[in-house]
Amino acid sequence: MKVAIIGGTGYGAIELIRFLYNHPYAEIEAVISHSQSGRVLGAVYPHTDGLLEKPLEELVVEELAERVEVVFFATPPAVSKDLAPQFVERDVKCIDLSGDFRLTSPTDYQEWYGSPAADESYLKTAVYGLSEIYAQEVAGAKLIANPGCYPTATLLGLLPAVHAGLIEDRSIIVDAKSGVSGAGRGTSPSTHYPEMNENLKAYKLGQHKHIPEIEQILTRTAGHPVQVTFSTHLIPMTRGIMSTIYADLTRQVSTNEIIEVFKAFYREQPFVRIRMNGELPATREVYGSNYCDIGIHADKRTGKLTIISVIDNLVKGASGQAIQNMNLLKGWDVTTGLNYLPIYP
Amino acid sequence: MKVAIIGGTGYGAIELIRFLYNHPYAEIEAVISHSQSGRVLGAVYPHTDGLLEKPLEELVVEELAERVEVVFFATPPAVSKDLAPQFVERDVKCIDLSGDFRLTSPTDYQEWYGSPAADESYLKTAVYGLSEIYAQEVAGAKLIANPGCYPTATLLGLLPAVHAGLIEDRSIIVDAKSGVSGAGRGTSPSTHYPEMNENLKAYKLGQHKHIPEIEQILTRTAGHPVQVTFSTHLIPMTRGIMSTIYADLTRQVSTNEIIEVFKAFYREQPFVRIRMNGELPATREVYGSNYCDIGIHADKRTGKLTIISVIDNLVKGASGQAIQNMNLLKGWDVTTGLNYLPIYP
Amino acid sequence: MKVAIIGGTGYGAIELIRFLYNHPYAEIEAVISHSQSGRVLGAVYPHTDGLLEKPLEELVVEELAERVEVVFFATPPAVSKDLAPQFVERDVKCIDLSGDFRLTSPTDYQEWYGSPAADESYLKTAVYGLSEIYAQEVAGAKLIANPGCYPTATLLGLLPAVHAGLIEDRSIIVDAKSGVSGAGRGTSPSTHYPEMNENLKAYKLGQHKHIPEIEQILTRTAGHPVQVTFSTHLIPMTRGIMSTIYADLTRQVSTNEIIEVFKAFYREQPFVRIRMNGELPATREVYGSNYCDIGIHADKRTGKLTIISVIDNLVKGASGQAIQNMNLLKGWDVTTGLNYLPIYP
Amino acid sequence: MKVAIIGGTGYGAIELIRFLYNHPYAEIEAVISHSQSGRVLGAVYPHTDGLLEKPLEELVVEELAERVEVVFFATPPAVSKDLAPQFVERDVKCIDLSGDFRLTSPTDYQEWYGSPAADESYLKTAVYGLSEIYAQEVAGAKLIANPGCYPTATLLGLLPAVHAGLIEDRSIIVDAKSGVSGAGRGTSPSTHYPEMNENLKAYKLGQHKHIPEIEQILTRTAGHPVQVTFSTHLIPMTRGIMSTIYADLTRQVSTNEIIEVFKAFYREQPFVRIRMNGELPATREVYGSNYCDIGIHADKRTGKLTIISVIDNLVKGASGQAIQNMNLLKGWDVTTGLNYLPIYP
Repeated sequence: MKVAIIGGTGYGAIELIRFLYNHPYAEIEAVISHSQSGRVLGAVYPHTDGLLEKPLEELVVEELAERVEVVFFATPPAVSKDLAPQFVERDVKCIDLSGDFRLTSPTDYQEWYGSPAADESYLKTAVYGLSEIYAQEVAGAKLIANPGCYPTATLLGLLPAVHAGLIEDRSIIVDAKSGVSGAGRGTSPSTHYPEMNENLKAYKLGQHKHIPEIEQILTRTAGHPVQVTFSTHLIPMTRGIMSTIYADLTRQVSTNEIIEVFKAFYREQPFVRIRMNGELPATREVYGSNYCDIGIHADKRTGKLTIISVIDNLVKGASGQAIQNMNLLKGWDVTTGLNYLPIYP
Repeated sequence: MKVAIIGGTGYGAIELIRFLYNHPYAEIEAVISHSQSGRVLGAVYPHTDGLLEKPLEELVVEELAERVEVVFFATPPAVSKDLAPQFVERDVKCIDLSGDFRLTSPTDYQEWYGSPAADESYLKTAVYGLSEIYAQEVAGAKLIANPGCYPTATLLGLLPAVHAGLIEDRSIIVDAKSGVSGAGRGTSPSTHYPEMNENLKAYKLGQHKHIPEIEQILTRTAGHPVQVTFSTHLIPMTRGIMSTIYADLTRQVSTNEIIEVFKAFYREQPFVRIRMNGELPATREVYGSNYCDIGIHADKRTGKLTIISVIDNLVKGASGQAIQNMNLLKGWDVTTGLNYLPIYP
Repeated sequence: MKVAIIGGTGYGAIELIRFLYNHPYAEIEAVISHSQSGRVLGAVYPHTDGLLEKPLEELVVEELAERVEVVFFATPPAVSKDLAPQFVERDVKCIDLSGDFRLTSPTDYQEWYGSPAADESYLKTAVYGLSEIYAQEVAGAKLIANPGCYPTATLLGLLPAVHAGLIEDRSIIVDAKSGVSGAGRGTSPSTHYPEMNENLKAYKLGQHKHIPEIEQILTRTAGHPVQVTFSTHLIPMTRGIMSTIYADLTRQVSTNEIIEVFKAFYREQPFVRIRMNGELPATREVYGSNYCDIGIHADKRTGKLTIISVIDNLVKGASGQAIQNMNLLKGWDVTTGLNYLPIYP
Repeated sequence: MKVAIIGGTGYGAIELIRFLYNHPYAEIEAVISHSQSGRVLGAVYPHTDGLLEKPLEELVVEELAERVEVVFFATPPAVSKDLAPQFVERDVKCIDLSGDFRLTSPTDYQEWYGSPAADESYLKTAVYGLSEIYAQEVAGAKLIANPGCYPTATLLGLLPAVHAGLIEDRSIIVDAKSGVSGAGRGTSPSTHYPEMNENLKAYKLGQHKHIPEIEQILTRTAGHPVQVTFSTHLIPMTRGIMSTIYADLTRQVSTNEIIEVFKAFYREQPFVRIRMNGELPATREVYGSNYCDIGIHADKRTGKLTIISVIDNLVKGASGQAIQNMNLLKGWDVTTGLNYLPIYP
């Protein structure tokens, strides 16, 4: 199957290329980059030197739609909202790594993203591609809104507890921590090496655009409106997200019981691993891989549940999950082209 | 004034030496190290090469008590509990950087530290040296229990809010993050460079021995028992602690109003700086210095208060605060020997 | 084909396992670890949780020799020298990642390793597995001495120039720089995170045990004794080696001409990539992969050649090259199970 | 004494401010920043919050010349070459941290800096401020060209050997390694955190503009033209430079003898420390301080001398040495305001 990647020189694209390079059934037909068109990828990213010889291309929708079955958008906000529909109309499946089709409410999009939303009919039909939860919907989708990195880690950590009624919805606090690659490839003073090295920063308290995305899914799961207190921190490392999640337990329940609930919830899911009692996951343990590792601690003293959920933000939080969704879309085994061990150390 | 440092080759001691080296009124008379006695400090710590020529000494209490006015303990747990009283009896003031005299309850010490507590009479008379809060008590103390690194960042961030009745005591959650130097100078697999670099780990959820220390002071301030949910994380950096603190607001109040409460609370305190609305402190901004920088965010949507409090764990969280307490003890200006800018970048 | 790994919990072993896990023709039959036998690998290395269920085993040579065709030794110095011959005698091929069979002279081994060498007959028949150079010998070997990490980066950078007579043998200086994982998994004060982070250290100037290994191959290539000045530095990163190599040019020759010599030399070699004029490789560009990337600069002003050669020390410098040698041994395409893109960023 | 800093928001300026803040005799009268004039420093650099209340100013030469005795230029290339003469004419001493007055030959400046040099009369009278070597000239200077970071580490390491005739001038190779702060505060793709973290890069082989500066001083010292092969590398850390220097020994001489030569050469110099035989300095051991630490290894096998010289690039390699030069200029003890211990760890 032939696929194209639009937005070919960001970190999302380069990770898509890494996984597609070894995918047994999918082949990269075109990599689209407006800023670098005509150059080979190895000139932009020397680590691919000699491995992908096709030059980067300008986008011509009609022509590209003829050549490929699936298009991945690894584009900045507000790019795919106009482009993806043009491919869908031409029966090309779209997997959008940006946030343009994640929120079903155009008002929410306008409020949190600060620009007009995509056509509402597409917002309604787009499927939220949290693979473990919406596998069935993804399988039949035309347009997949690939989840954000923070929502992936946070929702995979929270949903079993919400689903089982273990926690008070009103009490959820998410202290999220991300490596710097989450900020993308564009330079900025705050991601300048001497400013970020040996440093730890909080940013955008209660204001991150991933908040409505998380709340939308929690609300859908709970059946009533759920809000979260959500904080984000930059960690002096390149990859990795940890969501440390706090909530009041609805009843007295042991760590072991909760672990069993989580294990049952993810029984069929090869990419979610629940740590045993007393063990907590570290981001390095999923580095470069599509795994989400989860640790559980119920605090008897305070009646609070703490959930630690870690992913590689560029893999399970972006490109890996996009490949997983492609596999679902095509009916391939979900681990196809993704069953690699994390790189350690 | 002549002082001695016991436990001379840990990170606490080496930072004490850095500040005492330039202190205008205090002089290092002796550095005690059982493991390295007889060697000069420069042989253990080449960065001090040529600067401190006196050899490290074995401890002889009677003799040392004659030579110095103040003894700093930068020792592992369960060392000072027997030694400090011997100096106090000889009218030598003690500033203990370990946790041996921080908990007033011997039962709590036994439970959280796993060994018998110090003599209860000393636990009762020891003053908890959180300099900004207990300046007066410190000034008259014989034995000062210098606060732990996490409690310093956490309590300085929480106390103005607790004091002003802004938050529900039962709702306090502390998501604490520390650089690796907090684990001390001893090697261990989890602090081996390849394991900790480009990694983010949660550890000891709800089980850190700094919890009873925090709760003791919150309880004292609130006038009734207060418990906290407290999590700790290792960050891939050497220095710095950030406590991200969450609590339910007792009433609707704006970020600006809370900032004013905090500014008023710390009006006379040169080492606590409150950021203006919209600004959040980063650990690098206090690196190597005795400052505690605090940022505030009240989330209107969820009614929660978030407080970001940062310190250098080895300075305000240990040796710097110990010097500050020595200054209080002697009636010197509190900034004496500590009024340096953070090192940036 | 079934293989075993001896020394199953070091970094060499864990990387072997990563590549073998996805190798299409080889299968891990046993992982031997004396210290951890009986435990599953996921209990030692949580990043493998759920992926390899066989418990780690004690070594029983006779029994293991029946079960496998190839044994990898990822053991500390002085272990394989006695063990490998026992497998060879039983017609099991051995690939030794330690230094025990790299030096053909027992005297050199004794001098640089400080313990008696392996049986001389094995030293003589062992093949030095620098895959690009000795592919033919490796294909017919019974016992392969897998090269050291520094020698791999250094020799791949030097050999084309030595072979072409471009440089004065007596003038070779190698300024080598390694990430900290090169020191292995054992803890030590110098690899304690707070000591190594934000630090740069030179160590073992002219005394590293990889020196005789490099000189042995240079001497073999040149046809007369060659010595090198060799320095090693620890870089605050986990993976990656860079050898910056200096030598006097024997004649005036341009950077472009030298690049052509190198490209011709490695024409058939998929894992060596020569950068174009003006481009220099960075260690991140080979991260996690089996590539060796090389950059060239001829300095007209001083008549010196500078060669920059980078590898991932744990892959091309250890386990990846071991897999490459296994492929050669079995006549499989050399890239089998190794044709992955580097992980970037 | 009142001083001004021009170029007030770069790393050079912020370090000048750190040292001047505690200098007993000098006082910051004005900090000039065109881009940020009118703001207080704490708004640009939160780590100085509350400590320096004067707003940043626009430059008005006539007026500033009345207010201060010394002006520090912490400006990009090609700024001070026109401005400094205007202050010198008004009898204000200038200490220039940029490269504008370091090269005595206008042709060299044009060639290496790519723009026209300063007025030749000023190039001739400017004193090269390598404090340990040219203390006397600095004391009488009107305009001091503060050395570059690489030249400071390299020349302090080389000069004793050159002076004593220990090494062949034609054989000098400098493998220099720098933390990323050396690239300044401006953002660029190559200093973007995710690109530089866990990475090691060589750059500008034989082309760095510090080369003519080093050769000029070596030539002056040797009495005949000396050229060096000079390579630069970016290390994933914020601060620190290491120059690993290689040269052929002119005669057989032991490491101990060379150490004695170096110790004698720097006998009167408090900021240069020579390590004993077998010990090599690390950059962390001078972090934040004005020290230059040097290690020596003579390789008997190859007849080469290796010298390891480390500094903090922002201190001894820039602002610290500028303060040292101010002290020399005013006849104050050279350590005034600089006698702090390095920060460790």
